[in-house]
Amino acid sequence: MEESLGFIGLGVMGQAMALHLVKSHPVTVYNRTRERCQPLLQAGAQLADTPAEVASRSRCIFLMLKDDAAVSEVVEGSSGVFEAICPGTIVVDHSTISPASTRRLAHAAKIRNVQWLDAPVTGGDIGAREATLTIMVGGEAAAFEEVQPYLKEMGRRIVYVGAVGQGQTLKLVANLVSGINLMAASEGVRLGLKLGLSWDTMDEVMSHGTSQSYELSKIVDRMRRDNFVPGFSVENRYKDLKLALELARQVGFNADLTERAEELYREHWQAGYGQSDEASYVKRWDESE
Amino acid sequence: MEESLGFIGLGVMGQAMALHLVKSHPVTVYNRTRERCQPLLQAGAQLADTPAEVASRSRCIFLMLKDDAAVSEVVEGSSGVFEAICPGTIVVDHSTISPASTRRLAHAAKIRNVQWLDAPVTGGDIGAREATLTIMVGGEAAAFEEVQPYLKEMGRRIVYVGAVGQGQTLKLVANLVSGINLMAASEGVRLGLKLGLSWDTMDEVMSHGTSQSYELSKIVDRMRRDNFVPGFSVENRYKDLKLALELARQVGFNADLTERAEELYREHWQAGYGQSDEASYVKRWDESE
Repeated sequence: MEESLGFIGLGVMGQAMALHLVKSHPVTVYNRTRERCQPLLQAGAQLADTPAEVASRSRCIFLMLKDDAAVSEVVEGSSGVFEAICPGTIVVDHSTISPASTRRLAHAAKIRNVQWLDAPVTGGDIGAREATLTIMVGGEAAAFEEVQPYLKEMGRRIVYVGAVGQGQTLKLVANLVSGINLMAASEGVRLGLKLGLSWDTMDEVMSHGTSQSYELSKIVDRMRRDNFVPGFSVENRYKDLKLALELARQVGFNADLTERAEELYREHWQAGYGQSDEASYVKRWDESE
Repeated sequence: MEESLGFIGLGVMGQAMALHLVKSHPVTVYNRTRERCQPLLQAGAQLADTPAEVASRSRCIFLMLKDDAAVSEVVEGSSGVFEAICPGTIVVDHSTISPASTRRLAHAAKIRNVQWLDAPVTGGDIGAREATLTIMVGGEAAAFEEVQPYLKEMGRRIVYVGAVGQGQTLKLVANLVSGINLMAASEGVRLGLKLGLSWDTMDEVMSHGTSQSYELSKIVDRMRRDNFVPGFSVENRYKDLKLALELARQVGFNADLTERAEELYREHWQAGYGQSDEASYVKRWDESE
């Protein structure tokens, strides 16, 4: 069978990203929920029954999974990638997971003479669809050079960050910032509505002045349409805030504002919004209105 | 003497804004610290010894002052604007003060048959110099129409918000958002440095992805140059966070993240940074490094 690229994890982001690769390469895909493979198969991808089967057919395997546990299961679990992976293969992990898990997996890969690159992305579902993602990559430079052409098919800005794990570190730091920006935009917009300001004036002023942020635009747009289909789910946003806070604690850094943000966002998650888009935080004040 | 525009308050913002007006109009200026009038006088403005003298010569008076107390002093104090203002004059207050003070002053103006417009700005010192400010205006629509040509000389985006006080309300909401964005950017960037990320990769990734914000760019730029000449001072930033919180409390709105941000920013102010640029918050972690 022809050697192909492998792609495991076809959620909102993974599906959009894999669709770019399948345009120019043979791609073998796997997803736990098999229906999510359908758009890829229609676009010409091959289906695998297990992560191991993906590994057996691929010299470069892309992962876009939910969290540390999901990556571990797919890679180290039963019928996982490591069961069938060939020496010389490169694993490119687009998931956002902890730098510690990344380093552990990279070490386990190295024993098999496999290269592990952590390559988390930013730019959201829109960036994934439009291939305008920023991809930040940690790992050995030679492996990075080898996969860079594929990354350029999925993203616009490909940044080599350094040692394995540093891509994840940068991603978590960036998500700490975007997470708090999202919460600030939500709090501001809801307060403004309560004080009698209109969407129109808030949007016109706040999207162009010093309060401007990517997250503010997202909040305003999704709230106006009352559409909180993820996108990036509350569960994932909360996971990343928690990971950033763990990183800070590990190095004894006082992340005071992040501490509070994590508590507040956890409340939102616990209120049943886990599967809604992260921007649903703006609905937090609905009941008190 | 020829009737002119009046401009009172020549701090960083006011000076830059008044310099645009003096290009096309006779302008009478007043500032408590007289040396700050110098650039305006060189550009052709007339000096007044008191706010009352400005009022006696002007049919439209622009204010750009520090806080509620400063506006009250200049307008209602001894030798203040109200001592010499003529019926039909329009006062345009570019200061950021509380909506409550604004409504009180607008009422006192109305008794004198004077129109009060609250017209706070956003866009920072750069926006003031480049005449790209966003100006949000509350007050009577007819008075707004009358002064709009002047506002267009100082700003790019002139937004009529509604009743008097609503310009201030929108400004405080916008500043709540930008204030928290600034703190999030600071916390993220400092954590990133501690975790071994470089300025270059953080800037490249965070300025273009979902973590992007106006404040992040400002932080990165000022911190790299280690230049915290205000700009927008810590004292002013703190004042606005406090005012936003007061607004929230007045209407029973739970501004939980803002509550924490206000506490943390107050600590920074109390640590002696009051006269530094707001972006100096990023130095908060210096001593613990």
